[in-house]
Amino acid sequence: MHFFMVWQRYAEMLKKLYSVGTMRFNRRSLLFLLVLCTFMICFSFWSRCVLNPEPVDMNRKQMVDVATEGDFADVRFVNRGAKNYNMPVNEMEIPSANVQDMECEINKEYSVQCKRDDNEVYMPFSFIQKYFEVYGEFQNTDGYEKFEFAHSYSEVHQPPDVISPEGAFMSFEHYNVEIRKRVKCITAIEGVPISTQWEPAGHYYPIQIAQFALSHYSKYLREGEPETVSLLDGSNSDLGAWLTGVNVKVTSVWNQVRSSRVVEFQTPDALSNPGLYIHLKESIYALSMDLKIVSNGSISVTLKNDGATFHVHYVFSNTLITCDGKNIYYGLGVDRQDEWIHFARDADMDLLKGLMLKCSKYKKLNGLSLLGVTIRGHGVVDNVTLSSAVHMDHFFDAANWFVNHQDRRGGWPIMVTRKLIAGVMELQPGWYSAMAQGHGMSTLVRAYLKSKKSVYLRAAINALKLFEISSAQGGVKARFANSYDWYEEYPTTPSSFVLNGFIFSLFGLYDLKQVVKEEPLETVTRLYNEGIKSLKAMLLMYDSGFGTFYDLRHISVGLAPNRARWDYHTVHISQLLQLTKMEDDPLFSRTVKRWQEYMHGIRSPHN
Amino acid sequence: MHFFMVWQRYAEMLKKLYSVGTMRFNRRSLLFLLVLCTFMICFSFWSRCVLNPEPVDMNRKQMVDVATEGDFADVRFVNRGAKNYNMPVNEMEIPSANVQDMECEINKEYSVQCKRDDNEVYMPFSFIQKYFEVYGEFQNTDGYEKFEFAHSYSEVHQPPDVISPEGAFMSFEHYNVEIRKRVKCITAIEGVPISTQWEPAGHYYPIQIAQFALSHYSKYLREGEPETVSLLDGSNSDLGAWLTGVNVKVTSVWNQVRSSRVVEFQTPDALSNPGLYIHLKESIYALSMDLKIVSNGSISVTLKNDGATFHVHYVFSNTLITCDGKNIYYGLGVDRQDEWIHFARDADMDLLKGLMLKCSKYKKLNGLSLLGVTIRGHGVVDNVTLSSAVHMDHFFDAANWFVNHQDRRGGWPIMVTRKLIAGVMELQPGWYSAMAQGHGMSTLVRAYLKSKKSVYLRAAINALKLFEISSAQGGVKARFANSYDWYEEYPTTPSSFVLNGFIFSLFGLYDLKQVVKEEPLETVTRLYNEGIKSLKAMLLMYDSGFGTFYDLRHISVGLAPNRARWDYHTVHISQLLQLTKMEDDPLFSRTVKRWQEYMHGIRSPHN
Repeated sequence: MHFFMVWQRYAEMLKKLYSVGTMRFNRRSLLFLLVLCTFMICFSFWSRCVLNPEPVDMNRKQMVDVATEGDFADVRFVNRGAKNYNMPVNEMEIPSANVQDMECEINKEYSVQCKRDDNEVYMPFSFIQKYFEVYGEFQNTDGYEKFEFAHSYSEVHQPPDVISPEGAFMSFEHYNVEIRKRVKCITAIEGVPISTQWEPAGHYYPIQIAQFALSHYSKYLREGEPETVSLLDGSNSDLGAWLTGVNVKVTSVWNQVRSSRVVEFQTPDALSNPGLYIHLKESIYALSMDLKIVSNGSISVTLKNDGATFHVHYVFSNTLITCDGKNIYYGLGVDRQDEWIHFARDADMDLLKGLMLKCSKYKKLNGLSLLGVTIRGHGVVDNVTLSSAVHMDHFFDAANWFVNHQDRRGGWPIMVTRKLIAGVMELQPGWYSAMAQGHGMSTLVRAYLKSKKSVYLRAAINALKLFEISSAQGGVKARFANSYDWYEEYPTTPSSFVLNGFIFSLFGLYDLKQVVKEEPLETVTRLYNEGIKSLKAMLLMYDSGFGTFYDLRHISVGLAPNRARWDYHTVHISQLLQLTKMEDDPLFSRTVKRWQEYMHGIRSPHN
Repeated sequence: MHFFMVWQRYAEMLKKLYSVGTMRFNRRSLLFLLVLCTFMICFSFWSRCVLNPEPVDMNRKQMVDVATEGDFADVRFVNRGAKNYNMPVNEMEIPSANVQDMECEINKEYSVQCKRDDNEVYMPFSFIQKYFEVYGEFQNTDGYEKFEFAHSYSEVHQPPDVISPEGAFMSFEHYNVEIRKRVKCITAIEGVPISTQWEPAGHYYPIQIAQFALSHYSKYLREGEPETVSLLDGSNSDLGAWLTGVNVKVTSVWNQVRSSRVVEFQTPDALSNPGLYIHLKESIYALSMDLKIVSNGSISVTLKNDGATFHVHYVFSNTLITCDGKNIYYGLGVDRQDEWIHFARDADMDLLKGLMLKCSKYKKLNGLSLLGVTIRGHGVVDNVTLSSAVHMDHFFDAANWFVNHQDRRGGWPIMVTRKLIAGVMELQPGWYSAMAQGHGMSTLVRAYLKSKKSVYLRAAINALKLFEISSAQGGVKARFANSYDWYEEYPTTPSSFVLNGFIFSLFGLYDLKQVVKEEPLETVTRLYNEGIKSLKAMLLMYDSGFGTFYDLRHISVGLAPNRARWDYHTVHISQLLQLTKMEDDPLFSRTVKRWQEYMHGIRSPHN
């Protein structure tokens, strides 16, 4: 009987029931009512059974079906199995429409629970992720969610179009060295990062200092001149918004050395004292000034973070960094009174590194704003400026560090123990790194070209010496199979042949090669050419057929290959991309193409 | 109201309805009936909605739940997701109980359809299989079906416990060289395989001939003496079951040369003629005899296969193999009348190779049985025997081939063009292979030790010469980075450095080293030691961190690495297992352990 008619009869009957108190009923109506109820009961129980079948029986049935078939559906096939899943009730009894659980036994060693739909087996991503070292996450776009499977977590940055010793360094504008956890702080004495890598107490790591320099240099080229706010200018006698508390004298005076007017100030030097102060509400945090303190004194920056007020104090001590509640202290050096200091700090970074010392419950930057600057003590000051960035100040601080800390061998010794393989490949404090030497050159050559000061170029040239000295003699030169020179990032014995460090050292030689003449040109050219010859001969030793090796320790000492994790693999790729612009050899373009394919899971062929 | 009471009331009412024709009904009963029906209707619709939900809505709901959670369930977690799948109806409304289809986007390049259950995403094996180059199949055990995931399709065979030049060769007892498609047949003239690899017309490939020899030698050592049935013995004048048709004379005569009685026979030589014939029904197929034919003549074996009757004829021609309907012909050589021939054939293999020529619709062996043997022509015969195998006959046939075909340079030239990389790494016909030289030595040394015939040892020693000659001079010696000698399986220029062929050549040198004295001992020891030195220095260059490379072509010519497919990887493993017994160096045991782990998807670590 048609469903609609059933409803008509049912409705009529209900009308009658309400129209009269008691009434006569004939058997037909009552039988119909009876049939209707019984039908409803059956339907509801039937739907129960079909929509929630005994899972075991279903499994059995399906397995027998498929055991006879054997091979697999291809990917398109999945859609068929999947379609069934949205079938209306009356089709749901077809077993293949049902997704079942199934045991997947892995290499006869252990099992994971899979799903099965028709001939297709579905393996859990939690297994795939661990087993194949791949990545994935849910992505929700306007309420539509998909799962993004990624072979690699890292991304490739393009080097500059034209490689020049004055240009950006590779793709370092993407680096932010100082934000790394292993950077303890940027010292206020020399303005360079302190590394806690391999030595929690902290040490000067020339590679990190150079990367700090080269990243700020590259950022400067990309960003151009920063946004600035002039807070105090000696040539302008107006104090503007600066407040002078009790016992504070401020006068505008002529300064011989700078042959310009500057602001002379005199305040009690205790940090409790208001000093010479300016109220601000800025969202740029780079503070710079030229200043000379004749007595004791300090500079303080007041910042609001996470709703709390913090003070970053720069004082005349040799303490790198310390904290006390919401006060953070940086030492400007004990012996720097009575001399002109070019002060340039990222107050936000200085605060962040202070928070990392855990003197307060605040751990990270959040809703930051710069509330004021205080100058205390007796001295003269000029060009007090807030900027969005002081990249070139950082760059030259680091370049100066390389000039001031180069030893008589032309190197920058690294004062920590480095263990590549404990007991097998170790370096004792005082080792040199070809990567540090090369990075130093790239930094110093840029400083020379920007400043025209020969002191930078001389230091860059001095850095060459260690390239001629073997690892065994305390230099950085290794030799592979007694045939190929290799400049070692870690000059261990036996040699480690780290790829990225070697290529960075070649970048340093390349930069220097562009700016020198006569003798040093001969040497640097020979060193560069020897290195390129080795690189071309050995590059493919780092090709694993589905990624790259970080070094050749496995060949040197016969241990397991040290596969490069994806972020090193992408460094290799960026380096090769740059080499295609430095060297006219299809090897580099051919190889970098394949290495990029590896990041999408495309392997080299097998025989 | 309790469900049971509802049923009581319903039952009462039905009783009443049937007990009376017409009756008075009060409103309470009717209202109850009404409520019952309505409840039934609602329940049935409710069950519809919950058990077959709108998939899109469900997706939405679930996705929002999970988007907030982020990371993944681990493998155990799957069971939770899966358990829900068997929930009773009244729990089915929990969304996480439902498996949904979901788009998986692969490396932002394309998508496959996945399943999702709670926080777990399930990827289709048809994708995983292609993307990661893995394997899997359904396995049904007593009705319980699971899915077996396998990282590799290949298996490792153990070498002998003691490595000796008289012992089994590596794990070659597992090889069956002649059954390979690229073996055209075993010639009846010399009893060695003809290879169609790289040359469909067929050629003598010394590596294949040696592997034929060494596999039969190793099988003999494993299986011991074969099962035999003597069909005819000259010393016994009784003809037994042999039938002599018309014009067939058979007599027992004394033979000087063999100084024993033999059977002289004379029959018409046409193949149409019944000849000297014996009816059999055997399931062993190796036929051997000593025979001298003075006129024309032939030997025929009758076999039943797939219900049809086939004849394999061995005739005095130079035809390798040919067929005509169900007749297959092998040439014994035109010039071999009037000399004693030791005849030893695997009739089943000879039939199979005949079927491969496609003269009939029959393609493979099935329900095979040997029905008889016929000898025709005029000659003498002795020791007519059926055996389960004639391994040592095959072995010595091959060893003799190496003696008879060694050229004045001590090599076995290979007469085909071999292209490793077209236009880049090619060998012209006449090239030598260090692997062929080494395999030849391993064969000849065993033949010498078994037979004490110095001709074998001399040939093995002559095979050394080419190890001293560079690839460029037409020898087999390459050099890596001008530092390490390498014996080339394919002595291309530039060098290819194939690993397995090199190690097999070392096995040959090792075997020879055990049996020679004085001068040759000096040479072979030097060659072996140089090779081992190179192997130790270069072994890890073949380690990809998740498998092995077949060769070093990528380093030689800067192209993509040539990954070893799994069956070559397992050869590498078997070779290292043997090297651990030849050389006391932990490098081999350490490396083979890791290479075996690669077969289970365990990679070398990354930094």
